[in-house]
Amino acid sequence: MAEEKPVTACLVIIGNEVLSGRTQDANLQYLAGALNEAGVRLMEARVIPDVEATIVATVNECRAKFDHVITTGGIGPTHDDITSESIAKAFGVPHVVHPEAEARLRRHYARPEDLNAQRLRMATLPEGAELIDNPVSAAPGFRIGNVMVLAGVPRIMQAMFDGFRHRLKGGAPMRSRTVLAYVPEGQMAAGLGAVQTAHPSVEIGSYPFFRAGRLGTSLVVRGTDAAKVAAATEAVKVLVRAQGGEPIEES
Amino acid sequence: MAEEKPVTACLVIIGNEVLSGRTQDANLQYLAGALNEAGVRLMEARVIPDVEATIVATVNECRAKFDHVITTGGIGPTHDDITSESIAKAFGVPHVVHPEAEARLRRHYARPEDLNAQRLRMATLPEGAELIDNPVSAAPGFRIGNVMVLAGVPRIMQAMFDGFRHRLKGGAPMRSRTVLAYVPEGQMAAGLGAVQTAHPSVEIGSYPFFRAGRLGTSLVVRGTDAAKVAAATEAVKVLVRAQGGEPIEES
Repeated sequence: MAEEKPVTACLVIIGNEVLSGRTQDANLQYLAGALNEAGVRLMEARVIPDVEATIVATVNECRAKFDHVITTGGIGPTHDDITSESIAKAFGVPHVVHPEAEARLRRHYARPEDLNAQRLRMATLPEGAELIDNPVSAAPGFRIGNVMVLAGVPRIMQAMFDGFRHRLKGGAPMRSRTVLAYVPEGQMAAGLGAVQTAHPSVEIGSYPFFRAGRLGTSLVVRGTDAAKVAAATEAVKVLVRAQGGEPIEES
Repeated sequence: MAEEKPVTACLVIIGNEVLSGRTQDANLQYLAGALNEAGVRLMEARVIPDVEATIVATVNECRAKFDHVITTGGIGPTHDDITSESIAKAFGVPHVVHPEAEARLRRHYARPEDLNAQRLRMATLPEGAELIDNPVSAAPGFRIGNVMVLAGVPRIMQAMFDGFRHRLKGGAPMRSRTVLAYVPEGQMAAGLGAVQTAHPSVEIGSYPFFRAGRLGTSLVVRGTDAAKVAAATEAVKVLVRAQGGEPIEES
């Protein structure tokens, strides 16, 4: 049976604060898992600065290459938040006030004067964009074409994604099983290559670790077909035992 | 005085385990800071899978675009470690045993039979590559052209980079000052845009945060000239006070 073509995604993390090391990105790891549950494979991620030309070029390259593109960051009210206008340029559409987004902001702020010109920028979106709800702080994300534009603050990003994920068109999720062994990976490498060759429909990853002063290897088997993943996992366990180790399956 | 052209770098993180969410990358944040101290500006980072065609295309694009390229991951002994051969393909050079790398591995393993064919792959490098020492586990990283190839395990990667950094050609490091204020960023946005316009040689970033139930903004001023960074930081503090806040400088 031929493998179904995977539904793919690329994550574009927009923000000088990640590239300067000031902020540790937490969105990639969350989205990798959440996308996988929706049957979408994260194939690539890019971290880029708040520079219009870079955002335009990156988004245009990635939306042509992947089924879905998710961006995080740069949709707040300050001068360094330029994601929305850059996405409008990438799509070659005007950047206009979205009436429903504006209405949401008007309801959110207590006094009319609090919705100043800078905050109103958060309701200014590429023409044709569809809103993505922000249950945390009102200012919406949006979708245009195959590009979903989300906030950078993790709890807002997660709330946006969680409200939107059921609308993502995905395929079969990857299933994953992990076997730990206190055997150096170099000692198992030949056998592991043979297991991979014998089980071509799964991916086998090998990751060395040190724990409590002992060198070990974490072996990860991933694939969309649970039976094939199980068969390859058994083969990995046989290999570990043949090398004198005791396989420990991690849940 | 015209600003010196910055020396740029791109980080290419190679590994299915980061894209699947299994592993939280820690190398970007470390390298962002360490590169900056060396006067090199991290302009972009990419996270890509262990797929030869993707590694070749990404490395070739990035080495043409940036002064330095650093890769992490995929230089171990197992079948999923394909960075070294992919870099050889990217440069169009043969992939050959490096005698000094082999000698280091021979010294590292207690018994000759421990240096099996798979481990010997870690001494097989693009022709012309220059070794980067690995004081942790012997198997070296390498440099070819403007590409530095490092391990993915953070403590090995850091040891490799720390031994190599003095050889990186850099410019002036970015200096950074951070001011916290319990004022919403949307309230300061107009003023902040004006401060940015008045201080074009620095970058001002604005990052909202929630701390102990209070909404605040972290304002980061970055630039290579300490006096200009100081002047912009003072202007930011004046702005915070004008909005009824008390600026707190974070060290």
